[in-house]
Amino acid sequence: MIVVMKSDATPDQVEKAMRRIESLGLKPHPIHGVERTVIGAVGDERGKSAFESLIEIEGVENVIPILKPFKLASRELKAEPSEFNVGPVRIGGKGFALIAGPCSVESEEQILDVARQVKARGANMLRGGAFKPRTSPYSFQGLEDEGLRLLAKAREETGLPIVTEVLSSEDVARVAEFTDVLQVGARNMQNYSLLKKLGKTDRAVLLKRGMMCTIKETLMAAEYILTSGNPRVMLCERGIRTFEDSTRNTLDLAAVALMKDWSHLPVIVDPTHGTGVRQLIPRMCKAAIAAGADGLMVEVHTHPEEALSDGFQALLPDQFLELSTDIKPYLAIEGKQT
Amino acid sequence: MIVVMKSDATPDQVEKAMRRIESLGLKPHPIHGVERTVIGAVGDERGKSAFESLIEIEGVENVIPILKPFKLASRELKAEPSEFNVGPVRIGGKGFALIAGPCSVESEEQILDVARQVKARGANMLRGGAFKPRTSPYSFQGLEDEGLRLLAKAREETGLPIVTEVLSSEDVARVAEFTDVLQVGARNMQNYSLLKKLGKTDRAVLLKRGMMCTIKETLMAAEYILTSGNPRVMLCERGIRTFEDSTRNTLDLAAVALMKDWSHLPVIVDPTHGTGVRQLIPRMCKAAIAAGADGLMVEVHTHPEEALSDGFQALLPDQFLELSTDIKPYLAIEGKQT
Amino acid sequence: MIVVMKSDATPDQVEKAMRRIESLGLKPHPIHGVERTVIGAVGDERGKSAFESLIEIEGVENVIPILKPFKLASRELKAEPSEFNVGPVRIGGKGFALIAGPCSVESEEQILDVARQVKARGANMLRGGAFKPRTSPYSFQGLEDEGLRLLAKAREETGLPIVTEVLSSEDVARVAEFTDVLQVGARNMQNYSLLKKLGKTDRAVLLKRGMMCTIKETLMAAEYILTSGNPRVMLCERGIRTFEDSTRNTLDLAAVALMKDWSHLPVIVDPTHGTGVRQLIPRMCKAAIAAGADGLMVEVHTHPEEALSDGFQALLPDQFLELSTDIKPYLAIEGKQT
Amino acid sequence: MIVVMKSDATPDQVEKAMRRIESLGLKPHPIHGVERTVIGAVGDERGKSAFESLIEIEGVENVIPILKPFKLASRELKAEPSEFNVGPVRIGGKGFALIAGPCSVESEEQILDVARQVKARGANMLRGGAFKPRTSPYSFQGLEDEGLRLLAKAREETGLPIVTEVLSSEDVARVAEFTDVLQVGARNMQNYSLLKKLGKTDRAVLLKRGMMCTIKETLMAAEYILTSGNPRVMLCERGIRTFEDSTRNTLDLAAVALMKDWSHLPVIVDPTHGTGVRQLIPRMCKAAIAAGADGLMVEVHTHPEEALSDGFQALLPDQFLELSTDIKPYLAIEGKQT
Repeated sequence: MIVVMKSDATPDQVEKAMRRIESLGLKPHPIHGVERTVIGAVGDERGKSAFESLIEIEGVENVIPILKPFKLASRELKAEPSEFNVGPVRIGGKGFALIAGPCSVESEEQILDVARQVKARGANMLRGGAFKPRTSPYSFQGLEDEGLRLLAKAREETGLPIVTEVLSSEDVARVAEFTDVLQVGARNMQNYSLLKKLGKTDRAVLLKRGMMCTIKETLMAAEYILTSGNPRVMLCERGIRTFEDSTRNTLDLAAVALMKDWSHLPVIVDPTHGTGVRQLIPRMCKAAIAAGADGLMVEVHTHPEEALSDGFQALLPDQFLELSTDIKPYLAIEGKQT
Repeated sequence: MIVVMKSDATPDQVEKAMRRIESLGLKPHPIHGVERTVIGAVGDERGKSAFESLIEIEGVENVIPILKPFKLASRELKAEPSEFNVGPVRIGGKGFALIAGPCSVESEEQILDVARQVKARGANMLRGGAFKPRTSPYSFQGLEDEGLRLLAKAREETGLPIVTEVLSSEDVARVAEFTDVLQVGARNMQNYSLLKKLGKTDRAVLLKRGMMCTIKETLMAAEYILTSGNPRVMLCERGIRTFEDSTRNTLDLAAVALMKDWSHLPVIVDPTHGTGVRQLIPRMCKAAIAAGADGLMVEVHTHPEEALSDGFQALLPDQFLELSTDIKPYLAIEGKQT
Repeated sequence: MIVVMKSDATPDQVEKAMRRIESLGLKPHPIHGVERTVIGAVGDERGKSAFESLIEIEGVENVIPILKPFKLASRELKAEPSEFNVGPVRIGGKGFALIAGPCSVESEEQILDVARQVKARGANMLRGGAFKPRTSPYSFQGLEDEGLRLLAKAREETGLPIVTEVLSSEDVARVAEFTDVLQVGARNMQNYSLLKKLGKTDRAVLLKRGMMCTIKETLMAAEYILTSGNPRVMLCERGIRTFEDSTRNTLDLAAVALMKDWSHLPVIVDPTHGTGVRQLIPRMCKAAIAAGADGLMVEVHTHPEEALSDGFQALLPDQFLELSTDIKPYLAIEGKQT
Repeated sequence: MIVVMKSDATPDQVEKAMRRIESLGLKPHPIHGVERTVIGAVGDERGKSAFESLIEIEGVENVIPILKPFKLASRELKAEPSEFNVGPVRIGGKGFALIAGPCSVESEEQILDVARQVKARGANMLRGGAFKPRTSPYSFQGLEDEGLRLLAKAREETGLPIVTEVLSSEDVARVAEFTDVLQVGARNMQNYSLLKKLGKTDRAVLLKRGMMCTIKETLMAAEYILTSGNPRVMLCERGIRTFEDSTRNTLDLAAVALMKDWSHLPVIVDPTHGTGVRQLIPRMCKAAIAAGADGLMVEVHTHPEEALSDGFQALLPDQFLELSTDIKPYLAIEGKQT
């Protein structure tokens, strides 16, 4: 950590700052410049936000952290990329997760139909929401427990592992009973009660980046799950919120490459929510693979015009087939397979 | 709702779109333009996101909603500003909430000391976190139940009503037992499990705008609490995330004025988190009052350099005294009193 | 400047980084930490982006600047707020600029009419565009030289100093001939050819913050004008671009307070463009004064429904009268007068 | 265009709005809904911002445009992708521009050395700045005319066409004399004086998206050049400004796909500025090709640690060789060749 003193700080203030640095367990190294003094503070500064309080010392202008704040999620701790299985599907390494399905589970007929069709067209995992986080309380909120039951039935019929969202720490146990991967939605990325509870389950977790969250914050959210004991975490880039209004979100593919560089965790990309524009999805799937993604999650619906949520961006089964075919040469270059 | 057809849409596609509009309970009115047809869809479109699925109809280019999506929070439903009491403090109308206290409850001595000092210097409510949402799992997470107990003790000693954050739907009951106002933090603004649970309590709710949430989404989050049965909701502007990096967030005071214009709910401003820069807080407090705010929430700490969280922006008690004095003429102009 | 070495940097790499720091005229101070070495680099680092190249040295992870990059615009160089006159109007200090007028000069009748009406209702300067930067080439581009002539005529009739925009370095001389204040629009804030040319004129400059520009960049743009020889610069906050879509821009009033804190230059606020919502303008004018602004710029039009540009947010003359009346108590508190 | 009346608009106000729509050359079609009336306005609304003034009519709540605002840049006007040559290099179609070179021209030796090396390693065009837009007036501003002369010499020696930035409408003629492609920098994307002048030259133009400009605004900026008579325009995605701070900008690859979908113009990607992080450049080059890009622009420097600007993100010649080799299979899939 670097503590920058004001240009008019007195020697006494510098002294006081140094004593405070020591009291925090760090070793202070003052550098007396022409305009001001800065103090290097040596030691492990991670995760100790009490250090921020150094800025309270009179005469201190700024406190600059040096280390990245995450540990367990970092390549510095674990250089090799993490790999694990979800049922038969390999996540990370040479594996590639192709997760498809509707936004919401709407009925037995719908979810079984979509499950069969996406399986036949190349998907290796099934997504579908039973609990839906909706901006409006007047919108369809999901089939809840009935939806979970239907997802389990779809797995039974098709063998596809299930990815479904859990909205609240209270629901973790009952959702975990029915699903293979517990998804944390973008709005919940910093719901720490939920993250801690997920760290105690034996299910894999798909952690979506919040639409307002930095890459570092995303890795810190993963750190919550990892420190609670669950190593099977996948990160998911699903677009961030910007001023651009022709797409629903701005898909940040550099974040995929940077998360892969900083962290050993696998990274999935969701171009459906990441763009919100159906005709952009195939291009963004290809680009995501080229950026280093370990998987894709896309919405597929047999009757998008009748979907109870988000139908406007779902692919039809045959569009999905075209997609799963078109991405093959890109997967081949990257040495990945579904 | 307006359904815009593509410039090359066929009469058959227009017909199909009109039939679908009817099946959703709206009445279609086609307008045949030079380049394209648009269809006005008449009826109450609010909260029915199934309408978005209209974009799935072949030949449809865009679907544009007309109505604002919130009802109970709107002035259209309730023209008069909402007012209610929290203990002796009037919220809304001519009342003004001056909420002060530390970021976290750290010890009995600390919270009682701060409580007494802010009361003596003009605060009419006490804030303090017992459950802390921290970016890092290695940071101080709050005293939890012990913190709640200490807050209750501070209320007993000073008579100040308590505002404290609740992080999870699981915790609502036990936090409600000890506090007067349940605060929803920015990271939880779209935690719908939590919002629904808060709608069932008899405590007032202070709902912080998410740092990447629009004004409309903020009002929709309030709508969740209102429709669940709790009318005592205050909105809180606490800064949004932008590219600007000299302030911690960008305090959006136009949002205060616009929320007051669109909604009858009281609006509080938190310039501590809204700027993250201590010397800007007094100016932003004055500006917030001028923008129409019904209250202010500021962090005050007796020893900010030893704070376990966020000390770097807390005011000292005497800085708070100066603030509570300096805002008086602005409150007088606005006809508000603490 | 602080040069952070990678955790696995070799002593040789540290040595090389130190030699490079010296060659840039700074004095290196290494601090050997547990995980890595950081090197403090002492000396005046401002404005020398060549220093960034230090990151090229093998083994260097990050380079962190310490000083703010502006000099002439800073309070460190000139502690007292700058004040100057534009005609009879005092800018800065106890003076307050109330600049009103239409978005564009449209005709002699229009500009004279508006000029007389805003003067009678409290304005002390007249704004109006002769050269208009329009997003679309098919939109009205301004009356150009004829517009300048009409503005000069309006000044002659009313005595109000004129503020008008100059779009290009080529136009500076001819616009300066007719106007009192040369305005740099938000889209041109980093048009350095234009800024340098404005530094050579004897007209005051109103420099609008770019909608994508940080506070520091805004002060750096002012620095271009100041170093070219023109000290009469006013900064203008006019809203930044964010994800919020209920207002046209997000008016950043904390930036007003921070620019006043960091710089001696006067700061004007433009709530018309800053919000793009007419009913928010009065509240934002009051809040701007409370935030410390030295002036306001608002659009006023006698027939906004016939305006050739931006009519949708202009105030009517009588709304302006109400505004200029309503802000008086706020100006009184701040010790400002028009 | 759709004109939405307020819920309490009177029949007289609706009538007045309809008459005003007619006076603007459009045909009004009222739709009387349960809560309010909306009026469809039929006709060509493009580029006529006077239409916005409709919102001035009493009783009007909102005005919603239907058509995209660009014409000449649109696929609706010209369905086939545009292709053209810059010297021997094919831009668009099956051609692929691989533009490499230093941020700034620094000396004859430097630019000739880099030019030879990037040519030998696969580049087909040379970039280099002679006029540099720098945030600080104290930073290196470019060699200006001498820089142009050196670029011309590099072309003579290597045969590589030259891409260089022009900062001001005043400079267009002299820069055009020495270069093949005139680059508009991100800060100048809405410098309309410059765009109009570029529309009159016979040089191709590379138009960089402003860092806070929408996709539509970028196409509107291209429209300025196209309507002024120059059809040889390439768009360039170079990252937008967001809250994310681990990358310098957020590279918006969905914008590449969307601009290709909406417009016939070729699109180039600049991952150097788009990420500002050297190790992300190779991945983003591959992803850009997968997203549909017609070319890449990357900074290459032989001694980045001594660069006078932006050295921190330039590739070394051998890193560029690796890049130009690694992208080949992606180009092959897309049917593109350099």
